[in-house]
Amino acid sequence: MNIGIIGTGNMGTGMGKCWAKNGHNLMFSYSRSEEKLKAAAATVGSEVSVGTPSEAVAFADIVVLSVAWAALEDALKQAGSLDGKILFTIVNPLLPDMSGLAIGTTTSAAEEIAKLAPKARVVESMPIFAEILHSPSTKFGNEVASVFYCGDDVEAKGIVAGLLRELGTEPIDAGGLKNARFVEPSGMLLVQLAYMQQMGQIGIKLLRR
Amino acid sequence: MNIGIIGTGNMGTGMGKCWAKNGHNLMFSYSRSEEKLKAAAATVGSEVSVGTPSEAVAFADIVVLSVAWAALEDALKQAGSLDGKILFTIVNPLLPDMSGLAIGTTTSAAEEIAKLAPKARVVESMPIFAEILHSPSTKFGNEVASVFYCGDDVEAKGIVAGLLRELGTEPIDAGGLKNARFVEPSGMLLVQLAYMQQMGQIGIKLLRR
Repeated sequence: MNIGIIGTGNMGTGMGKCWAKNGHNLMFSYSRSEEKLKAAAATVGSEVSVGTPSEAVAFADIVVLSVAWAALEDALKQAGSLDGKILFTIVNPLLPDMSGLAIGTTTSAAEEIAKLAPKARVVESMPIFAEILHSPSTKFGNEVASVFYCGDDVEAKGIVAGLLRELGTEPIDAGGLKNARFVEPSGMLLVQLAYMQQMGQIGIKLLRR
Repeated sequence: MNIGIIGTGNMGTGMGKCWAKNGHNLMFSYSRSEEKLKAAAATVGSEVSVGTPSEAVAFADIVVLSVAWAALEDALKQAGSLDGKILFTIVNPLLPDMSGLAIGTTTSAAEEIAKLAPKARVVESMPIFAEILHSPSTKFGNEVASVFYCGDDVEAKGIVAGLLRELGTEPIDAGGLKNARFVEPSGMLLVQLAYMQQMGQIGIKLLRR
């Protein structure tokens, strides 16, 4: 396939390397300078071409959008018409300091609960599905599901982590209570997969290396 | 520990069973009727007590909040003061039909992109971290990271899934483009863990059984 990549940062070049190895034709576009653009393309392979975003779109069977959130509108403007094109976006609207998302998340149940009970030591977690808790084992074969918990009270978090471990899960500290606005949608994603995508009893495991 | 549970649905009883096995003292509260409350407690064990939410709070070293989102305010009102208490909440603000979250999520980068390029066939994914893509292998030992993708164009999704597979990941269909509002925060959660919690090169794997 002809893959036109808009945005030549770590993600664009990282994905490009994998795709170039598999024989796809790549065109890179959208960098701070012509030099940086050529250098990014060169790290992927000598046969990789470079161009403007609109040239990348014209070239492409599939357009990959891998720019920072702040650059999105400018990048799309330079891309021109995307009518009928497959547009594969990996843009997460991270704030530059990574403290949150610039759009899309506003609050969480946990934060609202903390407002309603301001002196409670609130900790949140989205444990594994009830069907799994009610079954003879909460394991997935030999594997233990990871569950995220968050809160602002260190001692309370430690106690909750212990209770999560007793459910046969691996508790993962996901930071302060404000991160509930990421923990809750992550739980919701599993609900979508279990019910809407009909995957049934699922969980996730955090991989580290 | 004395664990007071507010909300006696599948999650409350499921967690309660695990904790009762480990020797904790439980009090269940908050059900549609006294009978249902007693029945829920009985499924966990004969030594489990029942009471009102405020009795459960008085009893508890740790209060577990496992009610439906719609019941939250009423449950907290019945609970009374939670000052100084550890409050472990598992409340995800799911809409009753599970089509979304009642609060906390409003839009997503993918949906905004689709507005800016309304005739593009938008697919979104949050692939693995760039550092992993640039390394000799994208595997975690023998394990392959799962990545979620979503979109409304079936053919485009199939093509993107293929490209994700070429990154050495396992693509998981997470439904329509609107689910980007869950996929993006899930990606953000990993960013938080990698950088704020300093876990470095991480990924997740979907477990099924």
